[in-house]
Amino acid sequence: MDLATIIGLVLAMAAILGGQALEGGSIESIMQPTAALIVLGGTFGACLVSFPLRAAIKSFKAVAKVFQESRLDNREVISEIIRYANKARKEGIISLEAEVQNASDPFLRKALTMAVDGVEPKILRETMEMEIGNLEEEGEHPIKFWEAAGGYSPTIGILGAVLGLIHVMENLSDPSKLGSGIAVAFVATVYGVGLANLVYLPFSAKLKLKLKADMLVKEIIFIGVISILEGENPRLIEDKLKSFVQDKAEGAEDKASGREQRAA
Amino acid sequence: MDLATIIGLVLAMAAILGGQALEGGSIESIMQPTAALIVLGGTFGACLVSFPLRAAIKSFKAVAKVFQESRLDNREVISEIIRYANKARKEGIISLEAEVQNASDPFLRKALTMAVDGVEPKILRETMEMEIGNLEEEGEHPIKFWEAAGGYSPTIGILGAVLGLIHVMENLSDPSKLGSGIAVAFVATVYGVGLANLVYLPFSAKLKLKLKADMLVKEIIFIGVISILEGENPRLIEDKLKSFVQDKAEGAEDKASGREQRAA
Amino acid sequence: MDLATIIGLVLAMAAILGGQALEGGSIESIMQPTAALIVLGGTFGACLVSFPLRAAIKSFKAVAKVFQESRLDNREVISEIIRYANKARKEGIISLEAEVQNASDPFLRKALTMAVDGVEPKILRETMEMEIGNLEEEGEHPIKFWEAAGGYSPTIGILGAVLGLIHVMENLSDPSKLGSGIAVAFVATVYGVGLANLVYLPFSAKLKLKLKADMLVKEIIFIGVISILEGENPRLIEDKLKSFVQDKAEGAEDKASGREQRAA
Amino acid sequence: MDLATIIGLVLAMAAILGGQALEGGSIESIMQPTAALIVLGGTFGACLVSFPLRAAIKSFKAVAKVFQESRLDNREVISEIIRYANKARKEGIISLEAEVQNASDPFLRKALTMAVDGVEPKILRETMEMEIGNLEEEGEHPIKFWEAAGGYSPTIGILGAVLGLIHVMENLSDPSKLGSGIAVAFVATVYGVGLANLVYLPFSAKLKLKLKADMLVKEIIFIGVISILEGENPRLIEDKLKSFVQDKAEGAEDKASGREQRAA
Amino acid sequence: MDLATIIGLVLAMAAILGGQALEGGSIESIMQPTAALIVLGGTFGACLVSFPLRAAIKSFKAVAKVFQESRLDNREVISEIIRYANKARKEGIISLEAEVQNASDPFLRKALTMAVDGVEPKILRETMEMEIGNLEEEGEHPIKFWEAAGGYSPTIGILGAVLGLIHVMENLSDPSKLGSGIAVAFVATVYGVGLANLVYLPFSAKLKLKLKADMLVKEIIFIGVISILEGENPRLIEDKLKSFVQDKAEGAEDKASGREQRAA
Repeated sequence: MDLATIIGLVLAMAAILGGQALEGGSIESIMQPTAALIVLGGTFGACLVSFPLRAAIKSFKAVAKVFQESRLDNREVISEIIRYANKARKEGIISLEAEVQNASDPFLRKALTMAVDGVEPKILRETMEMEIGNLEEEGEHPIKFWEAAGGYSPTIGILGAVLGLIHVMENLSDPSKLGSGIAVAFVATVYGVGLANLVYLPFSAKLKLKLKADMLVKEIIFIGVISILEGENPRLIEDKLKSFVQDKAEGAEDKASGREQRAA
Repeated sequence: MDLATIIGLVLAMAAILGGQALEGGSIESIMQPTAALIVLGGTFGACLVSFPLRAAIKSFKAVAKVFQESRLDNREVISEIIRYANKARKEGIISLEAEVQNASDPFLRKALTMAVDGVEPKILRETMEMEIGNLEEEGEHPIKFWEAAGGYSPTIGILGAVLGLIHVMENLSDPSKLGSGIAVAFVATVYGVGLANLVYLPFSAKLKLKLKADMLVKEIIFIGVISILEGENPRLIEDKLKSFVQDKAEGAEDKASGREQRAA
Repeated sequence: MDLATIIGLVLAMAAILGGQALEGGSIESIMQPTAALIVLGGTFGACLVSFPLRAAIKSFKAVAKVFQESRLDNREVISEIIRYANKARKEGIISLEAEVQNASDPFLRKALTMAVDGVEPKILRETMEMEIGNLEEEGEHPIKFWEAAGGYSPTIGILGAVLGLIHVMENLSDPSKLGSGIAVAFVATVYGVGLANLVYLPFSAKLKLKLKADMLVKEIIFIGVISILEGENPRLIEDKLKSFVQDKAEGAEDKASGREQRAA
Repeated sequence: MDLATIIGLVLAMAAILGGQALEGGSIESIMQPTAALIVLGGTFGACLVSFPLRAAIKSFKAVAKVFQESRLDNREVISEIIRYANKARKEGIISLEAEVQNASDPFLRKALTMAVDGVEPKILRETMEMEIGNLEEEGEHPIKFWEAAGGYSPTIGILGAVLGLIHVMENLSDPSKLGSGIAVAFVATVYGVGLANLVYLPFSAKLKLKLKADMLVKEIIFIGVISILEGENPRLIEDKLKSFVQDKAEGAEDKASGREQRAA
Repeated sequence: MDLATIIGLVLAMAAILGGQALEGGSIESIMQPTAALIVLGGTFGACLVSFPLRAAIKSFKAVAKVFQESRLDNREVISEIIRYANKARKEGIISLEAEVQNASDPFLRKALTMAVDGVEPKILRETMEMEIGNLEEEGEHPIKFWEAAGGYSPTIGILGAVLGLIHVMENLSDPSKLGSGIAVAFVATVYGVGLANLVYLPFSAKLKLKLKADMLVKEIIFIGVISILEGENPRLIEDKLKSFVQDKAEGAEDKASGREQRAA
């Protein structure tokens, strides 16, 4: 569970609906199915015209990711790589053939299989880079989809409001309905702006950070497997890969002091 | 048929017109030929001043592409390249002379013809890169045209609304017409914002993704023909080119397991 | 004559003024010299503070370019270069000395003169690159000037409208003038938004595309003269330069089939 | 204490609240806890959905930095590096082992420890570059967080205003409450726009400049330690590092004249 | 005196105040010290939070530059460099020692002093590049400061207007004051939008162009001094540096014809 997503959504909804209630406004007054129909239909219609069907479906599936905990600690994948590095160093890279099938990450499995198969380092490097590029591009689709939704939604909301206002203006002769008509029209704006700023754009932002974390793992694997293939000292590989996992600020201190102890 | 485009347009129109009907607004009230004249004339006038006539015509033609299915599977063009690679490997590159005329893609045909003609690899590479650059630039014209239309349209819509409001304000003495006058004025905004967000900008976005897919095919051909010319092993060429066509996420697994089986 | 510019301006004016007339609004009601004074004075005042006087004057002169036909066919300049290449190949580069004075393009004349003078290829290349950079930068001034005008104009229009509204608000006691006062105020918005979206920004966009076409000619000359100086085969030079002039999409086919015939 | 931050906040608050008071408006009329609830809850809710919890917490902690004096003078760290360089030159780099523990900057300590440990220059360089990259990325989180808050806040403010207006419109029948209802609604806009432009965006901008200054120190350390490891002349190292600390404009003169005196 | 700045400011003020007068509005009605207090205090408060005090002070000092004539002709500095180049060629670089103190530009003085001091070309190049980078970064502070002011100002203006409207709305019971209250509120918008578009943003734009011109001089000096140090032919140095000073378009012709005459 990505706590921040849950807390954020609850906080925003509570603040807005709570504020609405405190002001004495009823929740029903902002529950307008017609406005929802216009805003949601218009926004996702525009998104479908903008993206291929496959990307749209994937983008809805990617919403699950927004709620899942990111793997922030890459130590495990590094330990795994170092284990392979040690074995490859002692018994030759071919000795990894059996273990490779149980590699924890499909990208790691693929890279090691190619290494075991005796693919040339140059080709392996190119293929892995292309693969990382592909994975990154794939991962950007949902980010762009929700960003586009966040761009279309407020304007569709305004469109809905203007349509409502046109309706109101045509019936000015009955001023008693003026106010409630305008109120209904404004709800479309609330939906359009609210969904964009509380859901679509934040989802896109979170997916972007999660993609970055995912890509970091692939980069660790990339550097690790290339180093194994080039027969580097496992100790050095570990040092190199650990630069990626420090708990940053504090970590810089810890690592330094760790080394100091080692040096002492 | 690009299903997403059709579904998207139908969904958006149904949601907006349906919402309008549910609210009790008549469709006629948002059918204002004058507003359409101002918004469409102003938008495409601005676009014509911005672009050369030839680019504008091409951009209207490119709308057909928005409705056509993209070729997402590049396996066929790869098989074709591998077939040429095999033949060139066995019988020499000159043996491709007859077949080249039936190449499925004009860019592939051109590149192979140059290779068969004995053009130096360096020159071939440069010419192909320039050609890809040209094709990409050409393909970007409609994308930029519809993006520009999407930028001008809402402001022209507001211009139309302000013109309508000026008209209304000058006749304030007759308040009975006030409401309907404002309503008419607002329709220009609906057209300007609606066309931009449901048609122009989404068209531009979809054309961008389709251009990217088209350019990927050219890149596959580029790498393939260069590899043939350099006499690379067809098996290696296939491996290299297949990195471009995996069904991504799932594909990464499939390919890895495929290789595992091969390695076993 | 750049037809698109003329058609675009006529179309936009006809649509907006025609729409205005169809709605029963008089043209005079949107003819407000005071509003024009505020919007034009404010916009070009801001532009003059933003740019040097020389760049501003050049930007006004560059408007003529927006109405001139672009040279889209670069075949002539290529033929000219190939003629020089053939002569240089047969009689030595020094033989171009007489002809150079009649070169059709000042940049071509300069480059050839340097080549005939025996300037080293490295220096020639650097000087030409710097010259192309300078020409491009110079050409970007009017683009940026009109883009800036397109940015200032709508806000100055709003400024004018707010000033008008302030005036109206101070005289609320006389409600009979309220409507016409607001109408007058809104005209400033019409001018600001209209000029930006129908004139300034489209002018900037067209100038950008024309600069790109101009720079392409310079690049053709650059590559051509360097190739002559390096004594390349005129046939190869022609092949290389022709990549720049194909009628793109169709051209790719034509060129390929042309080569096929040659190869046959 | 970062004086500019304090003066800026006081100046802005004094100007706005003072202006409000001068106009005869009461401070209480813009103190609306409900509006604050909606705007703050909505903004930080959206931010929490956009960022991981850890980044959000760090961003709030980083606010302290906005109020702290930046270290603008890097002379001390340079003196320290030069002291190490001199010692390393005379007694060998291993002689730094004892001193390193007291290095003033954790990044400097870590880099020197690695140097003393005999890590290869290439590895040291890569590790330090990666570390600098990590520190920079970490430092960008709060910048992006407050920038995002500055983006969400005004739209949430408008959302709150529209919600308030809906409430007002529904109770049009009681016109006596109309004005005060609209006033309350507008306070949400004041909060949203004010917090974004006086707090969130300026905080983000200041953090950006402070990060840049911090990164400059790391770069000085990076160049210094690499130079020590490569055994460069401490005098040259000093010259190189001092380019980073000149009091710019004036400094350029001072340094030049300083050298002139030396040269004389 | 930078004529364009003066003409621009006078033109804009004359157009806006003149338009205001023509419309029958009094100048006093847009003179609201309270609105000025809110807009200026809020804007510069936000700027002070965003920038260090030192950068803010420098940005105000840089306003003088907006009114000063730019040095557009770099011929003098080139003549000076060529004079040094000739002397260094004939009598050795050490002979420049005496003259260097009178160099017209502090950056030129510094670079020559280092060259005379016998600093290695590599170090000299690095130091000069770093120095140019520093000068450019320093010069960008005022550009960014005024750009930020241009970004904050309109929103602070809207903030002031909304505060004024809140005040008006609370006193709806007295409709006679409604109009003038709204008028006063709108003045804040006029100040915010006007200052941003007629002063802050144009100042930032002009400073940017002036910085670019200043940096060009530094680049000429950089290339010149490096060429002197490498003992290049003064004639060639002149040719190289003159590419920077042509009166562009026309200059291209002139230079070409000049060379033709030389070649003849």
